[in-house]
Amino acid sequence: MPSSTEHRASVTVLGLGLMGTALAAALLKAGHDTTVWNRTASKTGPLAAQGATPAETAAEAITASPLVIVCLTTNDNVRGLLEAESDALAGRTVVNLTNGTPAQARELADWAAEHGITYIDGGIMAVPQMIATPAAYILYSGTDEEAYETHRPTLAALADTKWVGKDPGAAALYDLSLLTGMYGMVMGVAQAYALIGSGGVPAREFAPLLKDWVNAMTDGLVPGMAEALDSGQHLTDVSSLAVNQAALPNFLTAYAQQGLRDDLFRPLQDLLDRSIDEGYAADGLSRLVTLLKKD
Amino acid sequence: MPSSTEHRASVTVLGLGLMGTALAAALLKAGHDTTVWNRTASKTGPLAAQGATPAETAAEAITASPLVIVCLTTNDNVRGLLEAESDALAGRTVVNLTNGTPAQARELADWAAEHGITYIDGGIMAVPQMIATPAAYILYSGTDEEAYETHRPTLAALADTKWVGKDPGAAALYDLSLLTGMYGMVMGVAQAYALIGSGGVPAREFAPLLKDWVNAMTDGLVPGMAEALDSGQHLTDVSSLAVNQAALPNFLTAYAQQGLRDDLFRPLQDLLDRSIDEGYAADGLSRLVTLLKKD
Repeated sequence: MPSSTEHRASVTVLGLGLMGTALAAALLKAGHDTTVWNRTASKTGPLAAQGATPAETAAEAITASPLVIVCLTTNDNVRGLLEAESDALAGRTVVNLTNGTPAQARELADWAAEHGITYIDGGIMAVPQMIATPAAYILYSGTDEEAYETHRPTLAALADTKWVGKDPGAAALYDLSLLTGMYGMVMGVAQAYALIGSGGVPAREFAPLLKDWVNAMTDGLVPGMAEALDSGQHLTDVSSLAVNQAALPNFLTAYAQQGLRDDLFRPLQDLLDRSIDEGYAADGLSRLVTLLKKD
Repeated sequence: MPSSTEHRASVTVLGLGLMGTALAAALLKAGHDTTVWNRTASKTGPLAAQGATPAETAAEAITASPLVIVCLTTNDNVRGLLEAESDALAGRTVVNLTNGTPAQARELADWAAEHGITYIDGGIMAVPQMIATPAAYILYSGTDEEAYETHRPTLAALADTKWVGKDPGAAALYDLSLLTGMYGMVMGVAQAYALIGSGGVPAREFAPLLKDWVNAMTDGLVPGMAEALDSGQHLTDVSSLAVNQAALPNFLTAYAQQGLRDDLFRPLQDLLDRSIDEGYAADGLSRLVTLLKKD
């Protein structure tokens, strides 16, 4: 029997893909009464074996708990599900952990407010395997910070919690920004492996060098660029746009000579060329951020 | 007076840009007899004050030392300089630390061999400020590994040394591959700062989250992709191409909605779309590497 100080809540999870399943499993492991529902009912089996209550319908799942966590494939799916179940949802708190844009989050928040539903948007900074490990965290935002505080002890079973503000779109903005950083790294690492592989070097032999180098550059560049951006002082004595612009043709040439496509890096050459055309040759890489704004 | 066990060599540095100047300063600091030359002679002043011998001509600089380090802006410049000074260079070892392609390094090595010059190609994994610090290293390759071993104690004054093989193009291949990883990260971080900045979040507030997230993803993805590439087993239960391909439109939409350009990330969407078209929906991001080869 749980001790009286232990937090035990009723919580519902809608959507049992890889991520939804990991979320529900983490809630069960933390001792919460967890109701689960998925459009394809067979997905509830493994969770029921771990102690979850499978619901026949979304409405049944929703009415089982004051806190409803939604994790579907797209926010269009979320909108459809919430609209169909607005009566059951009234008076409850929805935490939407589906990947989406800030605008989608704000629209859902507005819609929820009109229907007496408390809406909290969230962005999961983890793959399913990282849920409930110290490496994972989830960003949250929404107009009702009190509701977030009420449910935070339950949400803490999923991953560390980070509140990023009362704009419902804030969690999505942080989430997409962080993942954007990751996707850039993925492009770089993919092209790096393609290039070194074209010379017959095994990827495993190259991996430690690549990891250490990218990490070292990230450790230096990320805080350095932030200083430059917030101060508006982009001049550098480390690595000027002129030096980078002059070096990049070597990369595109090498890709071609080694039988590789250069699609992923042509836009960087264009951006560097533009930075020189616009008079920023002596500035550092931080200047590129300002050039990503539409004219 | 240096102790008898101390290594003291004669070494020449041709080219005194930011990097060449840092290299010469490191050699001087390590106690080597350092001769310096630059096309624009005024650049030798600060180094002469640190004990360097400034040479009037490139030929004079070259004949002062058995080891000649070259660090110019482009390999076209290197080729021009070496061709003009081939008589003076005969019998000496040239270490070319100018950024270039594997093909350029092989061409220079062939030309040097025809003129009785020992050629070692190198790639500097550092910005000038990092020279002679533990964070820096230099990759070396060339047909004459013995010459490299002879001069390694001198080269060690610049940065840690890493020999990567007897193909003269190997150092450039490693160098360009590592820098490619960095440039991808730079694209990601630049777009990430543009996106979070569009929501009014100060870059300094976002920087620690961005750094930790990109580092964590690099730590996981780089070794994971290497395993998949070397084994040819790209199937994943972590983050499939289908999931990434479905998510990326949210990013491009959010960039547009926040007033940003999406040029840097459109090619990633194209690549993900192509991966699905070619039947790799269930594979992980490692599969993208194989799709970067030209058909």
